[in-house]
Amino acid sequence: MKKTVIIVAGGKGLRMGADMPKQYLMLGGKPILMRTVQRFYLFDSSADIILVLPAGHYDYWKELCDKYSFDIPHRVVSGGATRFHSVKNGLAAAADEGLIAVHDGVRPFVSVELLERCFAVAEAKGSAIPAIPLSDSIRVINDEHGSKAADRSRFRLVQTPQVFDAALLKRAYGCGYSESFTDDASVVEAAGASISLAEGDVRNIKITTPFDLKVAEAML
Amino acid sequence: MKKTVIIVAGGKGLRMGADMPKQYLMLGGKPILMRTVQRFYLFDSSADIILVLPAGHYDYWKELCDKYSFDIPHRVVSGGATRFHSVKNGLAAAADEGLIAVHDGVRPFVSVELLERCFAVAEAKGSAIPAIPLSDSIRVINDEHGSKAADRSRFRLVQTPQVFDAALLKRAYGCGYSESFTDDASVVEAAGASISLAEGDVRNIKITTPFDLKVAEAML
Repeated sequence: MKKTVIIVAGGKGLRMGADMPKQYLMLGGKPILMRTVQRFYLFDSSADIILVLPAGHYDYWKELCDKYSFDIPHRVVSGGATRFHSVKNGLAAAADEGLIAVHDGVRPFVSVELLERCFAVAEAKGSAIPAIPLSDSIRVINDEHGSKAADRSRFRLVQTPQVFDAALLKRAYGCGYSESFTDDASVVEAAGASISLAEGDVRNIKITTPFDLKVAEAML
Repeated sequence: MKKTVIIVAGGKGLRMGADMPKQYLMLGGKPILMRTVQRFYLFDSSADIILVLPAGHYDYWKELCDKYSFDIPHRVVSGGATRFHSVKNGLAAAADEGLIAVHDGVRPFVSVELLERCFAVAEAKGSAIPAIPLSDSIRVINDEHGSKAADRSRFRLVQTPQVFDAALLKRAYGCGYSESFTDDASVVEAAGASISLAEGDVRNIKITTPFDLKVAEAML
């Protein structure tokens, strides 16, 4: 079955306090984003890898690829104003058949086993998103003044890659944007489809803060 | 104002795959639990520190204290069958007035700033629990067959220490046990009181898995 991977690295931000967006920060001597791309290539070297970058970053990415002799085949498309619009741009370049995985560029620890699980579930059920149970108690905010304990066993934290039937995902992204979208599952769900969960992995962290980067360095 | 600290280290489990319960594992050359106790002593050396340990661990803890010349004043009381019962045993040894903080023994990175925030809020409002926003998307499990995207901005992950007016906390723990209790806030809430939140800290991690221990080592 045809596999397409859309890796979203649209971040222009410098929230990390670094002098470049987080997807290019070094992790064990190599930019984070390259590590992420490598995981998918390791999983399936025939997968079509589409990298979504801010248009203004193309030259810099090219320089990085040259500098690190990064030769994993991939295409680059330009990001949009939000994650939704970045994924949508990636989808425009993706095949209409098979499965499409959407992954955060700053999750470089995704394992081949997790990828196998997600693609297998998506092939059987049309969708698969990796999810993990909560290790902390959780509260729900009722209004500005109050909160209430919730049953943590009823919740799952969601990771990427989120894998979908290509036609389903393209149709969902054609239905228009809502600010309530936080991931691809919420987009597909808003279009009326149900979502299947796959077992996530606590090691599949998203690197968004300097603290996360320290954790990542420790994990190498 | 009188401050009592109940540090719960009732774990007998070997989930970490180690040969001893997680609270005694070494972190930077010192048992995790000693690091945790030190944070409270650093915050307020006059606080009354009560350590809740399995009764069968007293001798081992004494040996550890001798070995590491650990001389921070504290009392030890025996744990119960669940976290609820362990805290209840700690409360029986605690003062009736002032504020009582309940803290996980395996959260050794709690900062003095976080302690100051929690005690200040609890002094003003009767309760304070540190909470942090979610960095991942979240889904709620509806039944065995389905899940649904939830608005992550409406949720907070809960940490410790959870700080309460002493009389309020003792009254709540006197109301009896429910399996739905996952922390002290849920106990107090079940007794009819509302809970105030304080700003938590992502660094205030709970060490419960080998992965957490690696993260902790990196944080030192």
